[in-house]
Amino acid sequence: MMTLRENTINSKRIYEGRIISLRVDTVELPDKKYSTREIIEHPGAAVVVPITDEGKIIMVKQFRKPVEDFLIEVPAGKLDKGEEPLLCAHRELKEETGYSSGNMQHLFTFFSSPGFANETMHLFIARDLTVGEAIPDEDEYIEIESYELNQLIHMIFNGQIKDAKSIIAIFAVKQFLQSTSDR
Amino acid sequence: MMTLRENTINSKRIYEGRIISLRVDTVELPDKKYSTREIIEHPGAAVVVPITDEGKIIMVKQFRKPVEDFLIEVPAGKLDKGEEPLLCAHRELKEETGYSSGNMQHLFTFFSSPGFANETMHLFIARDLTVGEAIPDEDEYIEIESYELNQLIHMIFNGQIKDAKSIIAIFAVKQFLQSTSDR
Repeated sequence: MMTLRENTINSKRIYEGRIISLRVDTVELPDKKYSTREIIEHPGAAVVVPITDEGKIIMVKQFRKPVEDFLIEVPAGKLDKGEEPLLCAHRELKEETGYSSGNMQHLFTFFSSPGFANETMHLFIARDLTVGEAIPDEDEYIEIESYELNQLIHMIFNGQIKDAKSIIAIFAVKQFLQSTSDR
Repeated sequence: MMTLRENTINSKRIYEGRIISLRVDTVELPDKKYSTREIIEHPGAAVVVPITDEGKIIMVKQFRKPVEDFLIEVPAGKLDKGEEPLLCAHRELKEETGYSSGNMQHLFTFFSSPGFANETMHLFIARDLTVGEAIPDEDEYIEIESYELNQLIHMIFNGQIKDAKSIIAIFAVKQFLQSTSDR
């Protein structure tokens, strides 16, 4: 497989932004021809599924400018520079929902859009929740809602949940809770 | 909810690329302050889960430059300008794997990274497969592999499947097949 790796011949920085940056790499293909790859650089994120003792999932609703829509999502946020994903998960859960978790567990890590971005997402399940006050970022306007897990599965198939990381989080937690209760 | 929509005050085009483009919008927040939103424009994509009569899932393996890794993914590809998602699903399945499907069914549609991109992904399950010859794009080098569905679920949790759209596709097909066999 090593021969199919794309070696970088040239890398051109296009934009350095507040959250994302863009570069265009010229790469050498296995047949020795050249092609270009447009690459978004993103700091990565922690994604949290908070579950109350009653089995309800805490979701956040916010406006997403790129898709001009209000989306229902699981709490999540960007890693600060050098921040551990676990610490980020605790911080974002607190900031967006006010909840603290006494039992934060990593499920798995994935790439949101590996065709054009390097964003890495670390998925956590948060249990043993204690309620507190939310402290969102200055430019974040968030509503908090809670749902049954099976209701969220239904909302994926009928198009009410449209955010990829949230769809992954909901399916993963359902699978995880099923497999741990089967033991 | 209408009051929380972010109105565009200014929109600046930064980059027009081969696959993605970048613009930066200045938006007015509910408190009348301004903020900026960095937005990747993407044509959208069709995502296909091909299942053989024996219940095997056909996967593709390719190098992804943004994450510098070989990823195991479901077949997928960008919509051509004005192309219907269903036609794109048939086309990409054929190009990447060689298979044709006599039973292509839409499951749901989602946004891959709505925090910074408008990419819309249309998910299909492809059954009644007929084998043929793959015709990949000039700069695509793809290997084809097949797996049992439960093996793929395991590979999500142990980190062997890292691509978000593929994780969604695998979980969704498992849930879909379970719910249709329960009836």
